[in-house]
Amino acid sequence: MSRTTPVLALTVGDPVGIGPEITVRTLAEYAGTDDHHGIAVGDTVAVRRAVAATGLDVEVREVTGWDTPAAGEGVIDVLDIGVLGDSEPAWGHVDKQAGRAAVVAIETATRAAMAGDVDGVVTGPINKEAIWASGSEHLGHTEMLGELTGVTKQDTMFVVRSRQQPDHHLRIFFATRHLSLRKALDQLTRDRQVDSIRRALQALEVYGVDSPTLAVAAVNPHGGENGAFGREELDEIIPACEELRAEGLPVHGPIPADSVFHHGLEGRFEGVLSQYPDQGHIAAKTFDFDGTISVTVGLPILRTSVDHGTAFDIAGTGKADHGTMRSAYLAAVDYAPFVPRMRSAYGS
Amino acid sequence: MSRTTPVLALTVGDPVGIGPEITVRTLAEYAGTDDHHGIAVGDTVAVRRAVAATGLDVEVREVTGWDTPAAGEGVIDVLDIGVLGDSEPAWGHVDKQAGRAAVVAIETATRAAMAGDVDGVVTGPINKEAIWASGSEHLGHTEMLGELTGVTKQDTMFVVRSRQQPDHHLRIFFATRHLSLRKALDQLTRDRQVDSIRRALQALEVYGVDSPTLAVAAVNPHGGENGAFGREELDEIIPACEELRAEGLPVHGPIPADSVFHHGLEGRFEGVLSQYPDQGHIAAKTFDFDGTISVTVGLPILRTSVDHGTAFDIAGTGKADHGTMRSAYLAAVDYAPFVPRMRSAYGS
Repeated sequence: MSRTTPVLALTVGDPVGIGPEITVRTLAEYAGTDDHHGIAVGDTVAVRRAVAATGLDVEVREVTGWDTPAAGEGVIDVLDIGVLGDSEPAWGHVDKQAGRAAVVAIETATRAAMAGDVDGVVTGPINKEAIWASGSEHLGHTEMLGELTGVTKQDTMFVVRSRQQPDHHLRIFFATRHLSLRKALDQLTRDRQVDSIRRALQALEVYGVDSPTLAVAAVNPHGGENGAFGREELDEIIPACEELRAEGLPVHGPIPADSVFHHGLEGRFEGVLSQYPDQGHIAAKTFDFDGTISVTVGLPILRTSVDHGTAFDIAGTGKADHGTMRSAYLAAVDYAPFVPRMRSAYGS
Repeated sequence: MSRTTPVLALTVGDPVGIGPEITVRTLAEYAGTDDHHGIAVGDTVAVRRAVAATGLDVEVREVTGWDTPAAGEGVIDVLDIGVLGDSEPAWGHVDKQAGRAAVVAIETATRAAMAGDVDGVVTGPINKEAIWASGSEHLGHTEMLGELTGVTKQDTMFVVRSRQQPDHHLRIFFATRHLSLRKALDQLTRDRQVDSIRRALQALEVYGVDSPTLAVAAVNPHGGENGAFGREELDEIIPACEELRAEGLPVHGPIPADSVFHHGLEGRFEGVLSQYPDQGHIAAKTFDFDGTISVTVGLPILRTSVDHGTAFDIAGTGKADHGTMRSAYLAAVDYAPFVPRMRSAYGS
């Protein structure tokens, strides 16, 4: 891409959730900058309604192309997807037209990123029931992004900004996905460890860390204390780490989970592989709830997202905090220079 | 107790570990205050050696009773336990005399607390191998404290100071102890939940919270998502919470573990019951590694402690950070007014 100013597409998510509000708050905050340009992707009616709900003093401008220069302070841009027209579904209730709008926004933004028309996609929260009510069989963003990009293997990377080292971001990866803790333990095989570590190291490089180090979290307390507190470390995790260290890969651990994230945030490692989702989620979100964002790794495009839901209970009240959406947007700005690496590493 | 200034006994722990250094740094920092008085409990030779190692400009004064008033800025007090005499075992190596000194310091301080001569005990880190080498069959502090106080049931309470609400401390309790994660899952029965919740609520009241609320962490991701990600919530945790709510107890949850600690730190709850040790440890130590301290609940005396080890690799170098020891000391000062409640609730 030859643009010098990154252009990001921000899908508003489900238009009857808090997505439009946190999107317009984020866009309004950065409307005056020349360093990056965010464009809301959704129905203009939903964006205007969110501006009214938040009480922001901004003008909503409809753009028809991604290359329209930003208008500056006080003006936010929307690329209208034409689903809702003039209809305004009620805030905070599952609605099939709202679900359809959420799907079309993701399709529109993802296609623009695939075509190179935008540098990345920042996605607002969607509601699964609304997606299903709209007639889509997709389970969520992951399935839609997979189909739109032709990718079958995606990973989640959490990014947490360190307080200890202001320029340092810790990236957290996950060896297992969302399933019961018992099933996660069953899946912690040596092969999966090896594969997860390799993919995490690759992701660190793709996303701009040129000489990454990765720490692997233990799964049992005190790292299993040599078998006294569980055998997963001895039987699966340590052999995997040693195999990769023998290849010369910069892998540390396993390190007890109650210190590895702290050490990572101090700057000892660029990444931590957590063994089950809650392990990394507890660390990241307790440390910085609003600053923790999610990057989808494995796609040939840049995609960041909030890691919270549609909050139907407060949608339309203007109360929603846009901290995570802002963090997700700024992370996309930071990672935009590495889109060529994503295409090269994960493109077909 | 009729003292208005709390007196705390600080055991130096294993004298060849970092315990003496972090103890003297803490005492030196608060030597000038009239609000509380800390006294090191250990061998005078070990305390003097630690002062030399740290390069602190303080005088070491031997006291023979707990009621000696503090001498003020620049003077730290030690109650000599007479184990090492003039001998100085090498830093950083398991040593049976050092192990014996660690045991005697704990005995001395605990007896003083039981007699009401001090308001509380703050314990420095010990080395299990040295304890065993000294001829003691104890596994650690827990067993020694149990024997000295006649208590059979002790719980750990972590205390974390909130950044969001400076006057708010979050207390974290644990439904299971250190064992493999698989075994912890097997122990998460409804009966254990009920018992853990009751004990946690009692501890909050004993330690000064007059109308406590407690949140119970879920064990599976997203709280199990109604059985899709594990059944422990449906089968054990929810019935326990509902049983206690029906009694009118202020119990919330189960709440997904990736948000419950954040909400607790924001001030929504005074306590969180975590389901396995790492859950609460990851939250507390990632949030504030040096500020997380441990209180032993269930004893008729006040006891706080650091939650790190003897760090033999840096013992004697003066490099050890005393942040956690300071936090443990200040927590003991904070909890000293509630010693009568501890005696009444947990005394025989």
